Amino acid sequence: MSKQWGGRFEKPVDKMVEMFTQSVSFDSRLAPYDIAASIAHAEMLGKQKIISRRDAAAIVKGLREILREIDAGKFRWDVSLEDVHTNIEAALVARIGEAGRRLHTARSRNDQVATDVRLWARDQVDCIIEKVRLLQHTLVRIAEQHVSTLLPGFTHLQHAQPVSLAHHLLAYFEMLQRDRQRFTEVRNRLNVLPLGSAALAGTPHPIDRLFVAKKLGFDRISENSMDAVSDRDFLIEICSCSALLMMHLSRFCEELIVWSSPEFGFVEIGDEFTTGSSIMPQKKNPDVAELIRGKTGRVYGSLMALLTVMKGLPLAYNRDMQEDKERAFDVVDTVENCLDVMTGMLANTRFCSDRMHAAAEQGFLEATDVADYLVAKGVAFREAHALVGRIVLFCVKNQKRLTELTLDEYRTFSPCFDDDVFPLLRLESVVNRRNTPGATGMRQVRRALQKAKKALE
Amino acid sequence: MSKQWGGRFEKPVDKMVEMFTQSVSFDSRLAPYDIAASIAHAEMLGKQKIISRRDAAAIVKGLREILREIDAGKFRWDVSLEDVHTNIEAALVARIGEAGRRLHTARSRNDQVATDVRLWARDQVDCIIEKVRLLQHTLVRIAEQHVSTLLPGFTHLQHAQPVSLAHHLLAYFEMLQRDRQRFTEVRNRLNVLPLGSAALAGTPHPIDRLFVAKKLGFDRISENSMDAVSDRDFLIEICSCSALLMMHLSRFCEELIVWSSPEFGFVEIGDEFTTGSSIMPQKKNPDVAELIRGKTGRVYGSLMALLTVMKGLPLAYNRDMQEDKERAFDVVDTVENCLDVMTGMLANTRFCSDRMHAAAEQGFLEATDVADYLVAKGVAFREAHALVGRIVLFCVKNQKRLTELTLDEYRTFSPCFDDDVFPLLRLESVVNRRNTPGATGMRQVRRALQKAKKALE
Amino acid sequence: MSKQWGGRFEKPVDKMVEMFTQSVSFDSRLAPYDIAASIAHAEMLGKQKIISRRDAAAIVKGLREILREIDAGKFRWDVSLEDVHTNIEAALVARIGEAGRRLHTARSRNDQVATDVRLWARDQVDCIIEKVRLLQHTLVRIAEQHVSTLLPGFTHLQHAQPVSLAHHLLAYFEMLQRDRQRFTEVRNRLNVLPLGSAALAGTPHPIDRLFVAKKLGFDRISENSMDAVSDRDFLIEICSCSALLMMHLSRFCEELIVWSSPEFGFVEIGDEFTTGSSIMPQKKNPDVAELIRGKTGRVYGSLMALLTVMKGLPLAYNRDMQEDKERAFDVVDTVENCLDVMTGMLANTRFCSDRMHAAAEQGFLEATDVADYLVAKGVAFREAHALVGRIVLFCVKNQKRLTELTLDEYRTFSPCFDDDVFPLLRLESVVNRRNTPGATGMRQVRRALQKAKKALE
Amino acid sequence: MSKQWGGRFEKPVDKMVEMFTQSVSFDSRLAPYDIAASIAHAEMLGKQKIISRRDAAAIVKGLREILREIDAGKFRWDVSLEDVHTNIEAALVARIGEAGRRLHTARSRNDQVATDVRLWARDQVDCIIEKVRLLQHTLVRIAEQHVSTLLPGFTHLQHAQPVSLAHHLLAYFEMLQRDRQRFTEVRNRLNVLPLGSAALAGTPHPIDRLFVAKKLGFDRISENSMDAVSDRDFLIEICSCSALLMMHLSRFCEELIVWSSPEFGFVEIGDEFTTGSSIMPQKKNPDVAELIRGKTGRVYGSLMALLTVMKGLPLAYNRDMQEDKERAFDVVDTVENCLDVMTGMLANTRFCSDRMHAAAEQGFLEATDVADYLVAKGVAFREAHALVGRIVLFCVKNQKRLTELTLDEYRTFSPCFDDDVFPLLRLESVVNRRNTPGATGMRQVRRALQKAKKALE
Repeated sequence: MSKQWGGRFEKPVDKMVEMFTQSVSFDSRLAPYDIAASIAHAEMLGKQKIISRRDAAAIVKGLREILREIDAGKFRWDVSLEDVHTNIEAALVARIGEAGRRLHTARSRNDQVATDVRLWARDQVDCIIEKVRLLQHTLVRIAEQHVSTLLPGFTHLQHAQPVSLAHHLLAYFEMLQRDRQRFTEVRNRLNVLPLGSAALAGTPHPIDRLFVAKKLGFDRISENSMDAVSDRDFLIEICSCSALLMMHLSRFCEELIVWSSPEFGFVEIGDEFTTGSSIMPQKKNPDVAELIRGKTGRVYGSLMALLTVMKGLPLAYNRDMQEDKERAFDVVDTVENCLDVMTGMLANTRFCSDRMHAAAEQGFLEATDVADYLVAKGVAFREAHALVGRIVLFCVKNQKRLTELTLDEYRTFSPCFDDDVFPLLRLESVVNRRNTPGATGMRQVRRALQKAKKALE
Repeated sequence: MSKQWGGRFEKPVDKMVEMFTQSVSFDSRLAPYDIAASIAHAEMLGKQKIISRRDAAAIVKGLREILREIDAGKFRWDVSLEDVHTNIEAALVARIGEAGRRLHTARSRNDQVATDVRLWARDQVDCIIEKVRLLQHTLVRIAEQHVSTLLPGFTHLQHAQPVSLAHHLLAYFEMLQRDRQRFTEVRNRLNVLPLGSAALAGTPHPIDRLFVAKKLGFDRISENSMDAVSDRDFLIEICSCSALLMMHLSRFCEELIVWSSPEFGFVEIGDEFTTGSSIMPQKKNPDVAELIRGKTGRVYGSLMALLTVMKGLPLAYNRDMQEDKERAFDVVDTVENCLDVMTGMLANTRFCSDRMHAAAEQGFLEATDVADYLVAKGVAFREAHALVGRIVLFCVKNQKRLTELTLDEYRTFSPCFDDDVFPLLRLESVVNRRNTPGATGMRQVRRALQKAKKALE
Repeated sequence: MSKQWGGRFEKPVDKMVEMFTQSVSFDSRLAPYDIAASIAHAEMLGKQKIISRRDAAAIVKGLREILREIDAGKFRWDVSLEDVHTNIEAALVARIGEAGRRLHTARSRNDQVATDVRLWARDQVDCIIEKVRLLQHTLVRIAEQHVSTLLPGFTHLQHAQPVSLAHHLLAYFEMLQRDRQRFTEVRNRLNVLPLGSAALAGTPHPIDRLFVAKKLGFDRISENSMDAVSDRDFLIEICSCSALLMMHLSRFCEELIVWSSPEFGFVEIGDEFTTGSSIMPQKKNPDVAELIRGKTGRVYGSLMALLTVMKGLPLAYNRDMQEDKERAFDVVDTVENCLDVMTGMLANTRFCSDRMHAAAEQGFLEATDVADYLVAKGVAFREAHALVGRIVLFCVKNQKRLTELTLDEYRTFSPCFDDDVFPLLRLESVVNRRNTPGATGMRQVRRALQKAKKALE
Repeated sequence: MSKQWGGRFEKPVDKMVEMFTQSVSFDSRLAPYDIAASIAHAEMLGKQKIISRRDAAAIVKGLREILREIDAGKFRWDVSLEDVHTNIEAALVARIGEAGRRLHTARSRNDQVATDVRLWARDQVDCIIEKVRLLQHTLVRIAEQHVSTLLPGFTHLQHAQPVSLAHHLLAYFEMLQRDRQRFTEVRNRLNVLPLGSAALAGTPHPIDRLFVAKKLGFDRISENSMDAVSDRDFLIEICSCSALLMMHLSRFCEELIVWSSPEFGFVEIGDEFTTGSSIMPQKKNPDVAELIRGKTGRVYGSLMALLTVMKGLPLAYNRDMQEDKERAFDVVDTVENCLDVMTGMLANTRFCSDRMHAAAEQGFLEATDVADYLVAKGVAFREAHALVGRIVLFCVKNQKRLTELTLDEYRTFSPCFDDDVFPLLRLESVVNRRNTPGATGMRQVRRALQKAKKALE
């Protein structure tokens, strides 16, 4: 068996064109989905008497054997047979003869590939959701050990206010929570059966689409055949959800890289998750974190690629759409790999509480609280802020910390200061005073940890 | 009142820097949201006795007056006051004095701007959802008039099979339905109050976040203060949903442009929605459709811009994030305008049934049905397909249509042909034979129209 | 031999990390360049007495043997050896022993990979330039046969003015001419030797960089070692030049697709460069043109990917940069393939002069010339334009063409009209009247063809 | 005077469409270029006797007066007149009557806008080139003061080898040098006159394009009218060159931000180029550097926007192209502003030599040189590398630096060590030993500075 469409043509396709237009070199990974969909389709054709029960049974049996062959790595993919669909159909005909030629009744490659890709996408989204959950789980586990580890909270990469490391880590938990939610919504939206749309207009055969949908675990059937064969929204959504997820990972990795520098020394990533230099014997590099950060670009690029491909395409199927698969495959592979190594790397990272705590004592992290102290004494916030700004400038010039000023020195700035300002300046008390929902006070953080654990169940 | 942070600084900001870092030239459009959030915040501060009831009341009154001034176009925005927040606070202090200086207690610009932008985004998403609905409504109205208008369904911009124009139009209805769903999900996800997160760590003041959330119509409060001030996911989501929506519009516009060409002549866009040429007196151009298609690039670009901005940013707030607003504003404005003119243009477009019907008679659109006819006579689909391919080639060479061949001619290809092949070849019957859910048969299309109308209620 | 950097590490790298960080699965294609660079490096080390002449000779011999092994497909790449460099070095040590361990003296993988990639890029850019030239050559050859083939020139996909098909095709010649120029400039900019920069700071060994540069055909040596190991500008430039080139091809393909539709029928792409449908026997689809158009997205995406990767990376080398190669390889492969099939497809495309000419008689293409006729009679251009607009409207309503109006009818619009208006309206004369440089008059087009041929020599 | 194309239309344009399609709200900034081009065009029309000398003179005079009015801010732009061209032409007619209506002879808005935008682009590219030069100049000036300031050279944000700060800064000089070269090449490529192409096919009038080109300072005239009116390559090139430039600035800014952190403390950005916090009185944030880094996304996005706009557009002009201007304007404004503040910020930044030097003594920066020492003693590089790796591990465990080990300790690792290893370990000597072209040795750096200064002349 050769191409699926020879009859109308007088000359064969140019060899170069054959290579250029083939997809089997990458879409063969859809084989399990293609076969599952073909089995459901054949069973339906038999049930509806569109083909004979016997032919249907022969097809199903043949397809199962082919799947085993593929799983065993023994199937020979033939580029001249264009794509996964034709390769499998040709093998089926070779194996079971005439009956195999009846499988393609009442369908087209347009709705067939749309079905395969949705089945694949559903599996992958499920896989990503689970991997995100595992990463969240690891985060929570680490956070639980670091509720009372304090570090400087940064804005603009400047010391802002002290925070609990657990609180810092839980910020990523929240991002990942949104990521999971987004992927779940995409999963629901994509779980729709396009099969039965045929080339673009539906089929005259008395098919039973609901039967096929149920067999394949789809929630619904597509409502419009022209949309069904040309809709790639769900792949673009997977790319855009992945872009957001990678953006979150890139932020986390940036922190791990900065924190691994000798100047920060906030973390030490384990030997198993770092690599060295071919020339500098002392190097221990956070390569894994850098690669994850770098792969963010790859995923952004694929999102942009798919959006560009679809821009301005008229209805219904156009061959441009074949470009969807390689990018979508790459995005999903990239995201899954990144989640795996991210989780592994975090589990192998030591958070250096001492260095963090020492850093938190630099940089006037208590300044806001001094201002709030003045507010409590009746000074308007704006005035208090300006006044503490001047105190900080005084400290900078005299190389003192806020905890080292005497009460007299404080009073030169405002008579409102009193002895009760000093206990306030302890890091723990600065942190714990932030005791409203969502804040870094340790009671709140413990509450947040409980909620997080619940969300992962 | 000057900058909000002078105290620690010895030299004023460079004038060029002031211009470079200011945002009031574009964020002043957030004023109504900033004031609404400040009023809720002040009322809460009063209720919680963080400031006096009297001060709270003065603040609320002052803010309301400022809003009226802004609405009346009388407010003078001052670039040296950086942003919308500082401008309004300065005006408040000027108006009510000391009490005004207490408004910023227990908040930071970081959580303030996050709150403003979410309020703005919620309104805009609601607006987009409604405009999408109006466009769908127009589509349905037009489709209802064209259930029995037949045109060639295209794949690869080649004639494939005849379809109902209503069916074609409803493909876009489906795309827009997904768009609405996506925006609705984003709406739910973004409707979370960040206020109370302060700079990044929460506040020591005994605030009541749920009270503020309720006042402002938020569904929930944010769970982590560091995430809350640095989360821009919702803006990126608005951009990615908008990119998909624009992609759909670009496809529709591409079709309108191709269909407007003299060669197609399938549609005529009304004078009110076309423009002419400065040099060629005969021109009537589908400029509106072209501009919508072009603006797709603008929205894609903004999505890429925001993703790039956020890549690799450490926690929590970084000034890079200020770049979010102009792009988000532009995306939302663009989408809203495009939806408006798209709806207007469609309502002013004439669909030329005659030209469509004439075209549908070209290009062997019945070929699939001839193959299916042979299948019904027991020929395997693959053989039937090849055989009809040869018949088409015969027709091409002899400049005949499939309806023009004699039974004898058909029989030279296969003895299975009989007189009953001819009624099958009528366009209406080709279309109506596709009578399974989602297909183009008119009964199905009418059913789909009913469903669509229900979905819009 | 194992990793190049074991000494400082106590635990081996995690297996998952090994897979995640390896690059040999894709950078093995750099092997010929890696070996060429290593040979030049070894010869220099010997010449400079940094290693012994004997060791240098052994290294060179060993590397040549390894290259033969690779070319013969017998080399076994080992993923646990990370990258192409380590694989080859390990094979060298296995083959020649001790001397092999001296090859990496005075260099680092950072400058090594930068050198390899530049050598590769130089070859690829040369290849692209030549393929663009071949496409231009084909364009010129076709154009030469169609100087007097007239078709409607389109703006907004509406008929504007008649043009020579050769003129239309030469527009693409011009775009490709800029493409070639851009690639040539990139070629010059990238042809710089980074080797000798070592990890980032240069090397203490007395190397001779100019010698190596000359051996490898580089025009210059890099001026700053930190820039040299972290510069990826040239790969991004290749991507952005490729994006522009693909954009041009996408425009051409869009035209071929639209022109292939039955409604236009301006071209017929040969059987060897079209494909069929698995379900619709009559289909002959311009798949090749669609795929090229689609692959534009792929190239845009890779450009965006690389730009994102490099954003915000501190000096000097960071592992994120490893992400450059797969995208650059894919871009270059895509562009080369697209150029090949584009050239082949054009050579196999029939331009249907009759359909084009017939179309050119529709759509009032002479309208501008009627206005210019009036200008010549003294009417101001703006008035002439408005007046001809009204004539066209009259024609539309009365279903007449401008050539079909009587002089009396013309005179009802303006007394300036006379018999001499009619010869003016012939298509050929409309075209040929445009006889200034760059215009579509056939004399000008022939002149342009001469220039084009000269530019290709 | 109203629209330029009313005659053929029976109904006026919808108000919403008028707003949607207008461009005068942003293209009015092209006015000086539009007028310059119109003056050259009018003079040519007069010289060629296409219009009378008197009319030409009246037009030129009228246009000059309009320009003065615009410069004085007194010109009233009217959105209902679509664009800058029509606004100015309408004002001209209002001012000089009949003659004004002759200006548009032998041109179209298609070639007019192409000409205006090229004139604008040429000016902007010149401006950017000069601003890059100023930034380079500032870099050189700072570098000259820091030849002997040593800091850790980083790879993977880990200490690698010590480098001269001047060398580090000159890496950016090199990047900017390529940026200037690229912009210069774009400048040459865009300096081509499109005027005379008219709508798409040229004009029947006997125009003199070379005359106009010379008047307007263009190097050449365009070769193909259809290409000339639809070519936007030069704007995309400006965007892609700008993307690379911004990428470079983003890297530099990332370093300044990281270096400003208390943990690094390598630089202190002046008060005039930092800002504070509305809530934390102690904050001094590198906002300017962050904003530049953030604006990189904006420029990337605009590049993607323009590439998307142009994808798949058939010849010749399509209205989508109107989307080019706002993005191009924004890119150029952004780049110019970023260059200005970057230069200013650097000039106001203190580089803290002490902190840098102290850091350079941490992290075993001499390790590579110890390995090279062993190589000089005859050890193969690979063995030397592994051995020093073990020494570093020993130091890490015993909290020693390489300079603190005794000779005996060294000898436990290899008998090759001798007293001469110690002088080698001094930072200055590590740096200065790298004394080949492009390396960080101070002699080389001084040479590089001389070259750099020469390049700026």
